[in-house]
Amino acid sequence: MSLVADPGVRRARAWLSRAFEPGSVDVWRFVERTGPVAAVQSLLRGSAPAEVQALAGRRAGADLSEEDLHRADRCGGRLVVPEDDEWPAVALHCLTLTAHDLPTVRREQPDRTAALVPPVALWVRGDRPLDELVDRSVALVGSRASTAYGEHVAAELAHGLGQQGWTTVSGGAFGIDAAAHRGSLSAGAATVAVLACGIDRAYPSAHSTLFTRVLDDGLLVSEWPPGCAPLQHRFLVRNRLIAALTRGTVVVEAAARSGAQATANRARDLGKSVMVVPGPVTSAMSVGCHELLRARDADRHAVLVTSAAQVLQEVGRLGEDLATPAERPGSPRDSLSDIARRVLDACPVRIGVPPERLAAVAGCEVVDVLRVLPVLELHDLVEWTGTGWRVRREPPAGRLAP
Amino acid sequence: MSLVADPGVRRARAWLSRAFEPGSVDVWRFVERTGPVAAVQSLLRGSAPAEVQALAGRRAGADLSEEDLHRADRCGGRLVVPEDDEWPAVALHCLTLTAHDLPTVRREQPDRTAALVPPVALWVRGDRPLDELVDRSVALVGSRASTAYGEHVAAELAHGLGQQGWTTVSGGAFGIDAAAHRGSLSAGAATVAVLACGIDRAYPSAHSTLFTRVLDDGLLVSEWPPGCAPLQHRFLVRNRLIAALTRGTVVVEAAARSGAQATANRARDLGKSVMVVPGPVTSAMSVGCHELLRARDADRHAVLVTSAAQVLQEVGRLGEDLATPAERPGSPRDSLSDIARRVLDACPVRIGVPPERLAAVAGCEVVDVLRVLPVLELHDLVEWTGTGWRVRREPPAGRLAP
Repeated sequence: MSLVADPGVRRARAWLSRAFEPGSVDVWRFVERTGPVAAVQSLLRGSAPAEVQALAGRRAGADLSEEDLHRADRCGGRLVVPEDDEWPAVALHCLTLTAHDLPTVRREQPDRTAALVPPVALWVRGDRPLDELVDRSVALVGSRASTAYGEHVAAELAHGLGQQGWTTVSGGAFGIDAAAHRGSLSAGAATVAVLACGIDRAYPSAHSTLFTRVLDDGLLVSEWPPGCAPLQHRFLVRNRLIAALTRGTVVVEAAARSGAQATANRARDLGKSVMVVPGPVTSAMSVGCHELLRARDADRHAVLVTSAAQVLQEVGRLGEDLATPAERPGSPRDSLSDIARRVLDACPVRIGVPPERLAAVAGCEVVDVLRVLPVLELHDLVEWTGTGWRVRREPPAGRLAP
Repeated sequence: MSLVADPGVRRARAWLSRAFEPGSVDVWRFVERTGPVAAVQSLLRGSAPAEVQALAGRRAGADLSEEDLHRADRCGGRLVVPEDDEWPAVALHCLTLTAHDLPTVRREQPDRTAALVPPVALWVRGDRPLDELVDRSVALVGSRASTAYGEHVAAELAHGLGQQGWTTVSGGAFGIDAAAHRGSLSAGAATVAVLACGIDRAYPSAHSTLFTRVLDDGLLVSEWPPGCAPLQHRFLVRNRLIAALTRGTVVVEAAARSGAQATANRARDLGKSVMVVPGPVTSAMSVGCHELLRARDADRHAVLVTSAAQVLQEVGRLGEDLATPAERPGSPRDSLSDIARRVLDACPVRIGVPPERLAAVAGCEVVDVLRVLPVLELHDLVEWTGTGWRVRREPPAGRLAP
C-alpha cells in the first residue's frame, strides 16, 4: 500500500501553493522548518517571519484551498505533496540540494525566476503516478517559433525515446514543445506537460486537443492551483521544474538568449545532462543551440546529440542504451598495406602493364609489386589481361576517389 | 635580400621529390642527417640505407630533376625548398616536431598516409611568396558531395576570412574546396590550393578556370613534381599539409569517416585548432562534423563555429579578431525586479484596476505595488486609465511571452 499524505497536510500545501509564487527560498525554508500545517496557521495569524508574511501579502487573507482541491478533482486532477509516495523525490532531490546552498540574506539570493528551490506541491492531472513517469524521462525543450526542421527532429527524438520506454517532458507551448509531445504520443509513449498555469486550463487554447491526448497516457503538471493564469514570469520559474524532473534536457531549437537556453542552464546547475541538437548555422532558431555548444565553462559542457540513441547514451543507465558511432561501409582498400595501395593506384584502367612498370609508377621494388598483386587480385581490385595488370573493370562498391 | 637555396640543393630536392612518395619518416630522417645533395649521391650509387634505397626502388635509376624544374618553370612554377627564405618554416615546424617523435623501427611507424612528416620540398605555382600567404591562413575542408547549405557556408566563411586579410587554404576538389576558394576570391583575398598531383595539372579538369583565378593572387602547391597523377593515396598524404600550413582547420561538411575528418584529426595531432561547422542532423553530409564535435578525447576537442568571426577568435592573435557572442535586443523587462515583473503580469490589458487588486493577483503587499508602479510607468510598460492601471496598449519592442 502506498503512502498517502494526511488530508490536513495536503490542504495546507494547497493553501501555500496559492499564497506564494514558487521559487522563494525563504518560503521553502519556513515550510521545511515548521511543517506545512503549522506554517499555514502562523501565516493566517500573521505571526510568520516578516519576510515570508510580506511575500504572501494580500493572498494570506483568503483560504481557497478546499475549493482548489475540489476544482482539481473535478477536472480529474489531484495535489501531489512531498509527503506522498508518488512525490518524485529522487528527481527533485537536486533542488533540495541547491536550495540548501542558497544564501540566507535576501539581498544575496538570486531572482525568484532563477532560484533553484523545490516546489511546495505539484498539481497533477492524469491517471499515471508522477514518480513512475519521470523516473526514466528526458526534457525536450525549444523555441515556440520553431522551423519545420526543428519540429521534425523534436518529434523524431521523442518518438525514439518513447520506443525505448522513456517519457518525454516538455512545456505546453507551440513549436518544439508540441512536436515533442506528438512524437512521443506517436510511439504510444507517455508524455508529461509541465504548465505555467492551472492544470484545468488549456494554454494555448489551440492545444486543448493535444492536452487531451497527453492525458490519455500521460500527465499535466503545474505548481500553480487550478484557474491560475499563464503569467509571463511563471514560465521562467516553471523551467527549473522541467530540468529537475528529468535525467537530462535536450534543446532542439533556440534563438539567442531564449527560454530554452535558460532551461538548459538550470539543468546544468542541477547537475543534469545538457544535450543540444545542432542545426544550420544559417538558421536564427539554432543560434542559441550553437551558443550552448560553444560555451566551455569548466568541465561541464553541453553535449551535441543527433539521435535518440545518443540521448540515451548520455542519460541511460550504464550498460543499457548505448549508441553506436556513425559508420560508413568499409572498403576493401582500408585493409591494404601502403605498398598495395600504391600499386593499385599505379594500375591503369584499360591496358594491362607489366610489374616492372607498376614498380616504377608506385615507387617500389618489383619484388614488392609481385608480393602484393595476389592480395589485390584476391580482393577483386586488379585483373590479369594476358599481357599485364590493370584495375578490375567493375570494382566492388566502396572504391571511390577519396 | 632574401635567402635563396643553392642550385645543387634545389636540384637534389627535386630529385628526392620524384624518387620518394612523401610521408616516409625514414627518408626524411636520412635527408636530414646527410643533407639533400649527399643523400641523392648515395641513392644514385645505391649505397643509401637499405630501407631508404628500397623505398625509391626503380625510381632511383632515373634523374628527371632538371626536366621537372624546367616543366615547373614553363607553367610559372618553382620548387621551394627548406633552404629558401620563402619556406613556411614556422607553419611546418609542427611536422618537424611530430616526425622527431615517430618510432625508429619501421614496423612501429604509422602508415605513410597518417605519418606526420615534413615535405622534402614544395612545388609552388603563383607569384606570391608561400610563407607570407600562409602566415595568416585557415584551412577550409569538407565533402566533395556537398549540399547547397555547405557550399553557402564555406563561401561565406572564406569570404569573411578574406575580408579580414586571411588566406583560405583548401584542396582543389569539387564541393566545399571549390566553394571555399570562390568565397575567398569574391572578397579579393588570396587562396592556396594544395594539390595531390603536379602543379601543371588541372584536376579535376572542370576546375581549370578556377585554378587560373586562384593563380591571379594565390598559389597552387604540391609535394609531387609536375606531371604526377592525382593517385588516390596521395590525397590522404596531402591532407597533413593542409592541416600543417594553416593556423587551424575548419570542417564544413563531412560524411561519416571522411577525408575531411582525417584532415581535422591531423590538425589536432599537430596542435592546431580544429573547428567544425554544424548542420542539420538530418543531413548525411554533416554526420562527420557532428561526430567530430561529439568526440571528447582529453581536453583537446573540436570547437563549433558558425561565422568567420568565431573562426578568427580561435586562430587570431590575442587581442585582435575577437568574436562577439550572439545577441538578442534587450527588453525593458530584463532590468525589472521580481516584484515589478509580477505586478506587470498582473496588470490587465483593457480595463484599469486599482493597486489593491494588483497586489492580490501578484501576491505582494499594496505598498510594494505602489513602489514599483512608477518604474513600470517610466518604462512605458503600464498606464493609468483614470480609474486604474493597465498594460500600455503599444508596448515597446521586445515585450513577448517567454
